[in-house]
Amino acid sequence: MKTQIAIIGAGPSGLLLGQLLHKAGIDNIIIERQSPDYVLGRIRAGVLEQGMVDLLREAGVGERMDREGLVHDGFELAFDGRVEHINLRELTGGKTVMIYGQTEVTRDLMQARSESAAPIFYEAADVELHELKGEKPYVTFMHNGAPVRIDCDLIAGCDGYHGVSRKSIPDGVLKEFERVYPFGWLGVLADTPPVNDELIYASHARGFALCSMRSPTRTRYYVQVASDEKVEDWSDQRFWDELKSRLPKPVADKLVTGPSIEKSIAPLRSFVVEPMQYGHLFLVGDAAHIVPPTGAKGLNLAAGDVSTLYRILLKYYREGRQDLLERYSQICLRRVWKAERFSWWMTSILHQFPATDPFSQRMQQTELDYYVGSEAGRTSIAENYVGLPYEAVE
Amino acid sequence: MKTQIAIIGAGPSGLLLGQLLHKAGIDNIIIERQSPDYVLGRIRAGVLEQGMVDLLREAGVGERMDREGLVHDGFELAFDGRVEHINLRELTGGKTVMIYGQTEVTRDLMQARSESAAPIFYEAADVELHELKGEKPYVTFMHNGAPVRIDCDLIAGCDGYHGVSRKSIPDGVLKEFERVYPFGWLGVLADTPPVNDELIYASHARGFALCSMRSPTRTRYYVQVASDEKVEDWSDQRFWDELKSRLPKPVADKLVTGPSIEKSIAPLRSFVVEPMQYGHLFLVGDAAHIVPPTGAKGLNLAAGDVSTLYRILLKYYREGRQDLLERYSQICLRRVWKAERFSWWMTSILHQFPATDPFSQRMQQTELDYYVGSEAGRTSIAENYVGLPYEAVE
Repeated sequence: MKTQIAIIGAGPSGLLLGQLLHKAGIDNIIIERQSPDYVLGRIRAGVLEQGMVDLLREAGVGERMDREGLVHDGFELAFDGRVEHINLRELTGGKTVMIYGQTEVTRDLMQARSESAAPIFYEAADVELHELKGEKPYVTFMHNGAPVRIDCDLIAGCDGYHGVSRKSIPDGVLKEFERVYPFGWLGVLADTPPVNDELIYASHARGFALCSMRSPTRTRYYVQVASDEKVEDWSDQRFWDELKSRLPKPVADKLVTGPSIEKSIAPLRSFVVEPMQYGHLFLVGDAAHIVPPTGAKGLNLAAGDVSTLYRILLKYYREGRQDLLERYSQICLRRVWKAERFSWWMTSILHQFPATDPFSQRMQQTELDYYVGSEAGRTSIAENYVGLPYEAVE
Repeated sequence: MKTQIAIIGAGPSGLLLGQLLHKAGIDNIIIERQSPDYVLGRIRAGVLEQGMVDLLREAGVGERMDREGLVHDGFELAFDGRVEHINLRELTGGKTVMIYGQTEVTRDLMQARSESAAPIFYEAADVELHELKGEKPYVTFMHNGAPVRIDCDLIAGCDGYHGVSRKSIPDGVLKEFERVYPFGWLGVLADTPPVNDELIYASHARGFALCSMRSPTRTRYYVQVASDEKVEDWSDQRFWDELKSRLPKPVADKLVTGPSIEKSIAPLRSFVVEPMQYGHLFLVGDAAHIVPPTGAKGLNLAAGDVSTLYRILLKYYREGRQDLLERYSQICLRRVWKAERFSWWMTSILHQFPATDPFSQRMQQTELDYYVGSEAGRTSIAENYVGLPYEAVE
């Protein structure tokens, strides 16, 4: 088979890139190792930046999101007995975020892919990328027991941190940057009404907590736990008790609890590779970078890469701009690093760090006090939270 | 002898407090361990915040400062081959800083003290504070070989980090917060024309550098050095060569060098004690807190304490507001911690830290890139640099 762009991975990044390219008349084939149900089973973020919302609309998949998603004008920061509102809309000149689960984004994109009849291979085994630095790259894999080969112009690696794409780049080419945080997030999904109409990020002496949601009837709550905690040790009751202990009393008092639908512990990590490209391969999203979940930048950062790669490919195919292809990584990384910075910073100011010294603790408290008390500080938080502008492609 | 306020230390804090109190008709006596020449010989900061400038004018000692001082509307940040301007005036709605050396401030205050004929004891030996928690406190010392006792209502400890005031507080009362940075500043004072009409803070792979000045004909330059460097190892030539190597080439090319008048290495440290008061004793400035010099907050922070203590004393003597006296530390510390935060942050983003990891290095570079590239970020830098508003006393 032949195509212009081989897309590795049918998560939201791969599907969104495929949809945008398809609409623009650029042929693409998506290759996914898992089944659609497996992909949809991943519980991830639920806060979409303004830029990603706009990009989903541009891709023609924003209809249900605009109907069912919850536009949030702001969020709450709880610390030191205070609950402070960050008014995103006012502070950013009208920008907001959209509460709409990654699962729903993926479902809408799968639906669009299915309607477009553009090719997509699920449950592709033994995916291999070939001739990344050669004349013409190609991808091979096994599908329904038969070998498949796809010749292409370029490969988009949208297959996440554990995917084959980044691992296909020879040793020594990529420089890795990593920070492992000494704690994780224990998350619970429940069919309960949200405790607040906006998200609450809470800094507490017992550890960070987050009150989030997926819809008006489905909540997603998190508490910071030690890195070595096991999910089996957390009954629903223990989770709800711990969560309440970290929230301001008026919030804790009105929290509605219920049986968990999903409960899991995720580690917190910052990770970036440079460059984000190698020959004909372009890394997108988690394949190239991971952020800790504080600030909900993971999916949004992937959407930024998709936007950049999409706009570069348009100019490459329509105007022959080979130079832009070569600058993909450079264009992406500036924004990637800024989102890494914000995620690291939000993580740093809101969590309890074991074995920290008293001066560092005060710096953390003062960061919150200063940023929330200053319009410039609040604006800085807000402009990062709604998402910094996508880098220009020109 | 009797007085209302005994002021320990005749540096700029003690002298300024004394002058403000004297103008308000509140009796005070200043007791200083050193001679006037020794006090004037200390080479310190030269950047005055808007609030301190206003306070000096309020104290009636702003005339020469307003005539000879240099109003700076902004400063430069040099990093990664870029030179970026922080326009203080535009970003803060009209606030600026004043370049006027601490030595000159002290000289003007000494002159005013002398004209006021209010008592001041220089070269006071064996200063001791008594009955800090008792009915009536008093201070004793030796002066010209004779013992002196001063009975007072309250004592202002303006005698710096090494002074007797903080050390007079019993062990276990104060909580200490400290951060020692793994480097120092090698500073040179020279009678050369400034290389730039504004200060230049330079982040460079070889280490931080600062181009500062005291007047149109006197410069103060600094380079970051390892903690164990010795000033004897730094000839003038070596200093100028090192400084030039860290500056953007157009700046280095026009740097005028000359013989050093003073050359010294200062360690960088953050330090705060809580509370800033004990019984009848009130700690002011360096006696209670130290900042690293990045951002020039040391003298200015002391002026903030002076302002707070002065306004509290006015209300105490005129309205009997005992409650405000009790809240002195609490009122000061919120602003103190914010200035500590800014000084720590400016130090953190601009210096080379030995043994740092690649992720931390990128966070540092990205902090600069983000803050300078964002209006909210630049505003945050600017509002801290000109000085956050003094805390209200009411």
